Amino acid sequence: MIKVLLIGCSGKMGKMIYSSSEKLDTIEISAGIDRKSDAISKFPIFTNINECTIPVDVILDFSRPDSLDGILEFAASKKIPVVLCTTGYSEDQIKSIKLFSEKNPIFRSANMSIGINVINNILKNISSLLYEDFDIEIIEKHHNQKVDAPSGTALLLGDTIKDSINENTQYVHGRNGNHKREHSEIGVHAIRGGTIVGEHEIIFAGEGEIIELKHTALSREVFAVGALKACVFMAKQKPGLYNMDNVLNL
Amino acid sequence: MIKVLLIGCSGKMGKMIYSSSEKLDTIEISAGIDRKSDAISKFPIFTNINECTIPVDVILDFSRPDSLDGILEFAASKKIPVVLCTTGYSEDQIKSIKLFSEKNPIFRSANMSIGINVINNILKNISSLLYEDFDIEIIEKHHNQKVDAPSGTALLLGDTIKDSINENTQYVHGRNGNHKREHSEIGVHAIRGGTIVGEHEIIFAGEGEIIELKHTALSREVFAVGALKACVFMAKQKPGLYNMDNVLNL
Amino acid sequence: MIKVLLIGCSGKMGKMIYSSSEKLDTIEISAGIDRKSDAISKFPIFTNINECTIPVDVILDFSRPDSLDGILEFAASKKIPVVLCTTGYSEDQIKSIKLFSEKNPIFRSANMSIGINVINNILKNISSLLYEDFDIEIIEKHHNQKVDAPSGTALLLGDTIKDSINENTQYVHGRNGNHKREHSEIGVHAIRGGTIVGEHEIIFAGEGEIIELKHTALSREVFAVGALKACVFMAKQKPGLYNMDNVLNL
Amino acid sequence: MIKVLLIGCSGKMGKMIYSSSEKLDTIEISAGIDRKSDAISKFPIFTNINECTIPVDVILDFSRPDSLDGILEFAASKKIPVVLCTTGYSEDQIKSIKLFSEKNPIFRSANMSIGINVINNILKNISSLLYEDFDIEIIEKHHNQKVDAPSGTALLLGDTIKDSINENTQYVHGRNGNHKREHSEIGVHAIRGGTIVGEHEIIFAGEGEIIELKHTALSREVFAVGALKACVFMAKQKPGLYNMDNVLNL
Repeated sequence: MIKVLLIGCSGKMGKMIYSSSEKLDTIEISAGIDRKSDAISKFPIFTNINECTIPVDVILDFSRPDSLDGILEFAASKKIPVVLCTTGYSEDQIKSIKLFSEKNPIFRSANMSIGINVINNILKNISSLLYEDFDIEIIEKHHNQKVDAPSGTALLLGDTIKDSINENTQYVHGRNGNHKREHSEIGVHAIRGGTIVGEHEIIFAGEGEIIELKHTALSREVFAVGALKACVFMAKQKPGLYNMDNVLNL
Repeated sequence: MIKVLLIGCSGKMGKMIYSSSEKLDTIEISAGIDRKSDAISKFPIFTNINECTIPVDVILDFSRPDSLDGILEFAASKKIPVVLCTTGYSEDQIKSIKLFSEKNPIFRSANMSIGINVINNILKNISSLLYEDFDIEIIEKHHNQKVDAPSGTALLLGDTIKDSINENTQYVHGRNGNHKREHSEIGVHAIRGGTIVGEHEIIFAGEGEIIELKHTALSREVFAVGALKACVFMAKQKPGLYNMDNVLNL
Repeated sequence: MIKVLLIGCSGKMGKMIYSSSEKLDTIEISAGIDRKSDAISKFPIFTNINECTIPVDVILDFSRPDSLDGILEFAASKKIPVVLCTTGYSEDQIKSIKLFSEKNPIFRSANMSIGINVINNILKNISSLLYEDFDIEIIEKHHNQKVDAPSGTALLLGDTIKDSINENTQYVHGRNGNHKREHSEIGVHAIRGGTIVGEHEIIFAGEGEIIELKHTALSREVFAVGALKACVFMAKQKPGLYNMDNVLNL
Repeated sequence: MIKVLLIGCSGKMGKMIYSSSEKLDTIEISAGIDRKSDAISKFPIFTNINECTIPVDVILDFSRPDSLDGILEFAASKKIPVVLCTTGYSEDQIKSIKLFSEKNPIFRSANMSIGINVINNILKNISSLLYEDFDIEIIEKHHNQKVDAPSGTALLLGDTIKDSINENTQYVHGRNGNHKREHSEIGVHAIRGGTIVGEHEIIFAGEGEIIELKHTALSREVFAVGALKACVFMAKQKPGLYNMDNVLNL
């Protein structure tokens, strides 16, 4: 049973991590860190990571970028692997993570779902091959409260495609009026409506045939499942910087 | 057997009309009109409609707006119903068509497919009802040679939705950057790629559920099938202005 | 503010009804009935409906068929409209509901989602029209724990189609081996996997074109939203038997 | 300009090969073989391969299994690479092809579309990885005249999945009645309707997420495009047995 220290345990994702962990017999949340220590929970919660004396095998972080220094310091002193699921780190913080990884095992990923990572890897393999004969378009769908467009994950997938192709390509967002498609365009379309959790679809449209890769997130639980998978994986790793490709053995 | 005089018989759609008619035993192309009279065909072709002395039951037009006057004059003198599948008429031409319809049966439609007309009618019925609880988005997909965006059919469907709703709504084409969706937006997304014949999808995204209506044209033949259906229908109508709703009894 | 007495308030759907009601300012759960009275809740819970003296405007039932008699008796004595979302009533119970409806307003439906009811109504309108030229197939997708196949909702939609068509049609479940499709077949395909909440898709495939109607339930909350909508509607109705068509004004 | 001898040039696929070749400036049909020699064509047609004295770079076969011996004999004597797109060879014929490949370049594939081959390769890579956490289902859609179900291509893809997984899995065709899904099931669903050219969709449904891979053939031209690609590739190969993976460099 892998024992986890969960940073950000009282947030939306923190709670989901806990309820997902209860369905597994390979992993458990042994302690949590959050600003609100008064929440009722089945594991002890501390407001400061340094107060935590409960022995754990992995630290899982779903909090905010500014928790990073405290986490790395604590993890280095206790020799515990770290799984970072927080986004929005500064350049300097990314350097700190790399430095930390020289002596300690650490994991970092912007999207914890198995599916998005599998599709991202497929795109690495097929985009440059298909680009010669196929036009590429991306459609993403999210709920009507999402503020940014296109989604970060759509851009992650789009950038993977762009990086694979040995030519200049350009994102096109929305076509209105007369506009003959250039082959080098990559259309990225942001659909917004209702409570859609998240869909990402990549379309390769060619001469007489279409290939589509699609990922649908049914609930945010999928990100919890991926994070717990990463924890189980990281508990037994040597120092180094890891991501979902390593966990999924892609 | 309904006998048809086909205007624009040597064009892409004209040829498709002929090959579709051969599969039916209710209708046949008895004569054609086109600028190129030398084409090899199984029916006589004239360059001028007035040269045609072959008796027909319906005139089917898939040519250009400027053929209109000649067709209406010929049809009025011979008392033959007219099926117009040409688009791009001027205001004056539309008045001529209405005037003609007072004494003669005439049909006009911008989209001859059964499916698009069925969906357009569904939208008339459900849009205002659903608008209260659902966000509305339209996705259309066409081949990479299509110049206009969004497609005329997407706008036809979108305008039906807008007309049904008792509030101001606005089309939004492409979202890029920070952009919180207004409920009054109707997103219209034009995907372009490969040789896609034509797809139109209307999404109603609500609280915990999504309704989607989708039409896929597999080949341009679908427009030929609809036009021939309209001819069979029009052969027995009284004077008046008809469209696909009448043909399909919607 | 419509006040609701919620029967089955401690079950999965009961809890969802409560959390959905909290997002609305037109309706509130004022009291609940459930076998387990000790649950912590923001409204009083009784184990017997007759103990409830709190004034309410509607009774909403998400419990079991055997609660019916008690509910109808209580509702008749207090002159309160009833919304039944329970399924599996016996013939005798359905007769009791009809009898009750002669003097009291009562609502009953097998599927509370707005979307499924809208699609069911569309099918009533278009199936017989399209059947001449289109082959009809139904695909439904649900999670891997669902035991019955096809889903009750797929059969509800399929039966609507069958009832609309003036000819004998037959369900076909799975094609394996040599099998030339008869036009009178209605294919019904049950996909099972993962945690899919529920998708229902009706395909009309014709000569050169396809029409698809699709409903996706993103969470069970959609059934709660529909039930609360029904409560608001029923609070002001005259005696009679109502269903979602009345609520949605379809 | 690669010069092709096209066996079966007067059939449906033969004609499509010719019209596709006309759009390319890398390849041309220089001669054809077919039983009907009287067809009007822009290249000479012979009824017997041995009568053909026109110099060619590749032989492309879209005829029938019984043409095989004549083709191999002719190709061996003239040292010309062979591209076989015919299906239904006997065990003995497959041995002949292998024997021929020891001294001559020969290509053989059951599906010439780029897309299906790309998807088949993706499945080789991801199926065993995903099987642990995802249920797998296949949906294929074809026109209402197709006699066999499921399609050969659906079984090709399904067999790739089964071969990748280190456990016994079973195809399930249609679910009707009470039926709890076993994880080892691979559902294969054959939808039939209208004039659908061919769609194949593989669904990986997991805990909170779904991955879908989909291929749509818009017209049979896609198989012509793939075959011509194979010809250009084979024109410069050494002796050996090749398939679409080699052509596409998968």
